[in-house]
Amino acid sequence: MAPSALDDRVDVAVVGAGLAGLIAAERIRAAGRSVRVLEARERVGGRILNHVLPSGAIVEIGGQWIGPGQRRMVALGQRLGVATHPTHDEGESVLERGGSLLRYRGTIPRINPVVLADIAQAQLRIDRMARRVPVEAPWRAPRAAEWDAQTFATWIDDHVRTRPARDLLRLSVAAVWACEPQELSLLHVLFYVHAAGSFDDLIGTRGGAQQDRFVGGSQELPLRLAAQLDAAELRVLLGRPVRRIVHDGPSGAGGGVTLEADGGAPVHARRAIVALAPALAGRIAYAPALPAARDLLTQRVPHGSVVKCMAIYDEPFWRRDGLSGQAVSIEGPARVVFDNTPPQGAPGVLLGFLEGRDARELGAWPAERRRAAVVETFVRLFGPDAAAPRDYAEVDWSAEEFTRGCYAGYMAPGVWTAFGTALREPVGPLHWAGTETATEWTGYMEGAVQSGERAADEALSALRD
Amino acid sequence: MAPSALDDRVDVAVVGAGLAGLIAAERIRAAGRSVRVLEARERVGGRILNHVLPSGAIVEIGGQWIGPGQRRMVALGQRLGVATHPTHDEGESVLERGGSLLRYRGTIPRINPVVLADIAQAQLRIDRMARRVPVEAPWRAPRAAEWDAQTFATWIDDHVRTRPARDLLRLSVAAVWACEPQELSLLHVLFYVHAAGSFDDLIGTRGGAQQDRFVGGSQELPLRLAAQLDAAELRVLLGRPVRRIVHDGPSGAGGGVTLEADGGAPVHARRAIVALAPALAGRIAYAPALPAARDLLTQRVPHGSVVKCMAIYDEPFWRRDGLSGQAVSIEGPARVVFDNTPPQGAPGVLLGFLEGRDARELGAWPAERRRAAVVETFVRLFGPDAAAPRDYAEVDWSAEEFTRGCYAGYMAPGVWTAFGTALREPVGPLHWAGTETATEWTGYMEGAVQSGERAADEALSALRD
Repeated sequence: MAPSALDDRVDVAVVGAGLAGLIAAERIRAAGRSVRVLEARERVGGRILNHVLPSGAIVEIGGQWIGPGQRRMVALGQRLGVATHPTHDEGESVLERGGSLLRYRGTIPRINPVVLADIAQAQLRIDRMARRVPVEAPWRAPRAAEWDAQTFATWIDDHVRTRPARDLLRLSVAAVWACEPQELSLLHVLFYVHAAGSFDDLIGTRGGAQQDRFVGGSQELPLRLAAQLDAAELRVLLGRPVRRIVHDGPSGAGGGVTLEADGGAPVHARRAIVALAPALAGRIAYAPALPAARDLLTQRVPHGSVVKCMAIYDEPFWRRDGLSGQAVSIEGPARVVFDNTPPQGAPGVLLGFLEGRDARELGAWPAERRRAAVVETFVRLFGPDAAAPRDYAEVDWSAEEFTRGCYAGYMAPGVWTAFGTALREPVGPLHWAGTETATEWTGYMEGAVQSGERAADEALSALRD
Repeated sequence: MAPSALDDRVDVAVVGAGLAGLIAAERIRAAGRSVRVLEARERVGGRILNHVLPSGAIVEIGGQWIGPGQRRMVALGQRLGVATHPTHDEGESVLERGGSLLRYRGTIPRINPVVLADIAQAQLRIDRMARRVPVEAPWRAPRAAEWDAQTFATWIDDHVRTRPARDLLRLSVAAVWACEPQELSLLHVLFYVHAAGSFDDLIGTRGGAQQDRFVGGSQELPLRLAAQLDAAELRVLLGRPVRRIVHDGPSGAGGGVTLEADGGAPVHARRAIVALAPALAGRIAYAPALPAARDLLTQRVPHGSVVKCMAIYDEPFWRRDGLSGQAVSIEGPARVVFDNTPPQGAPGVLLGFLEGRDARELGAWPAERRRAAVVETFVRLFGPDAAAPRDYAEVDWSAEEFTRGCYAGYMAPGVWTAFGTALREPVGPLHWAGTETATEWTGYMEGAVQSGERAADEALSALRD
């Protein structure tokens, strides 16, 4: 259905049909305002993507989990009628280190107590510092200057004594931020931890951010949101990468916004919500050009690197051996592994993450070689039954033109304290959404929802003025 | 003169008519190949810009200095018939610290010998480490991982004991990189120092990078280069921001390159040289999309911040007082000051730099307030005669849409070791130039020239294959 000519002028235009953009559009529409979403891809969901297996079963090949405290995501699932099911967490997990395997229950393997104490004190310190970082304004933390002057690698070197504890922390960094500790400002780590609650909240399965999945795959949420928006008239335009935004300047008084996108006529609106990660928002041309502070910020929020890899088996054979399918491997390259079997219990799916350095290095390999390296890790962890998956699926999120990295944009040292104020501050009629702009569960789907709600409220408030 | 239809197909297209792009184009042309340069602005020169004073005298409001060891720039000036003259360096310089002024000669003020020794040992250590960083591949330095895991701020905290020495080093960082020490990887600092020679080479006037200026202003060089290129036929197209580059993929076999730019028909070429800072190159759309490694790099080379400010007086009155016009002020906001009087000796010009944090903060002020703050610094440094300049000129380089910061892109921790290989590596028919890609005097005009020569040689070599 082609939009009518009249439709080309709306109250609010949204750039990006990821979760943040769709939530913003839903809220705009619920307030009785007209809205249109322009999406670069031929699909909605952004970093959230379902993958259909040959059997017809669905697995998540993008963002997938929700956990306790993510109240907006719980409410969204309920509102859209998408049920959740627990991430498979029965049986023993596996830690591979120094060529040997250790089976354990819960989140903490029974390794050397000195190492365990070392990790525990580090997490305790991190959590304690994190609570002192205001999530709305990390640069106002009492020790913001000091914490933003160093990398997380420097902090680890200074405060974690044992090599195995450092290895495990480094692996946690890859699992949460998809980069290396030296790329992160300590202040950013603390902000991110506080926005989630605690370090354990980030890395945990049961009771943590990886606790639950959505039946039918997480992309059901953006798909249903888009379908509801489209029910009345075509509000979500696919295949429309926005290249240029003409607006009425920082003062915000005047004719509003015109969005020029490939694949169709410009869209005119009174306000626009750019629901993209800052790095991608910075690649749009703006007329007039954006204020320096905003542009400089967009140069400084790079994305982590993830290749999400799944091997498909007839059944989850590891469960027969009393294994949960969860594993941590210091050797890698798949260092963090989950059982990602669909809720019906078959086929069996092992999910391995290549993150940070591994994703960058193996992402450049031929696909067959990368697959072999991932499957080889699974064989080491779960035995020879893992050697011949009947199918394999992967996405290198850094290679995706309209994402360019996962899980989220992050801050190197010095960025929060110098450029943080430009993260959410509107520029005239332009508002900024995306999980990077969230203060609760930033980097997660929950943060995307919060950011979409906040940006929509800003735009609606401006429309009322 | 409009280009003929035939001209739209050339051997090499160059994006950007800064010094790197123009040098590349000159070299392509000298090899007997056809070339076209597409420039976003209505002028050439990029970060190099002359400013005409009401008197008709010319001052440089962008990159301006050359120093010993910059052999390509010396040769370029000679080739183009642009003479140099020494930066005014007669008389005493001024150091402002803690509200008091100290006059001194040479580069080193007569402050507390403990502080002087502290600075000297720091520079010595930096120079010694820098020599161990291969400028072609900083990630191959023996201690690259360690040096790239920390900020320069962390290194200063660990190795510089006195507060005044730290203040002066911080000020040097702003003067050289236009950012704060916490934003820089130690490895990047060492690379940059090695590419210039030594720390003193970077910060010095006589004998250093600020030794000489060009008669008529440094923009004479790009202006003459462009004029020579245009003499035969129109080779430099102004007002043509390139938005999209269609190319034949990483394999490089096929139809070459098509550059789509505002303001005219596409330009077709066999090879293209993108002579932009990486952050700006990353804002162009590429079809096919670039490999992940290259795209991720462009997310990670942010620009420093500079507002270059000049106050114009009837004459250089400070010279009468035995002052050189050079000053360093810990208080700021103009922390680094030069006499930028044209070679004819009048009008008198005081040049003050707002750099890093100062540029960001004062850049957001109303122009009048910023001017007052700069002039107030000059009054404190040079007396009441500085209070009423007859003219004032400034450029906030971060606000320039087609530059977005100065002096150059830099690397935060973790970037060189993880993404460095993508800095110069061609992607199919696409070559990368710009001073950020240089190995000698990166960040300087000399580096721009080296990069243009190297990229041209790459393209010419590919054309011969």
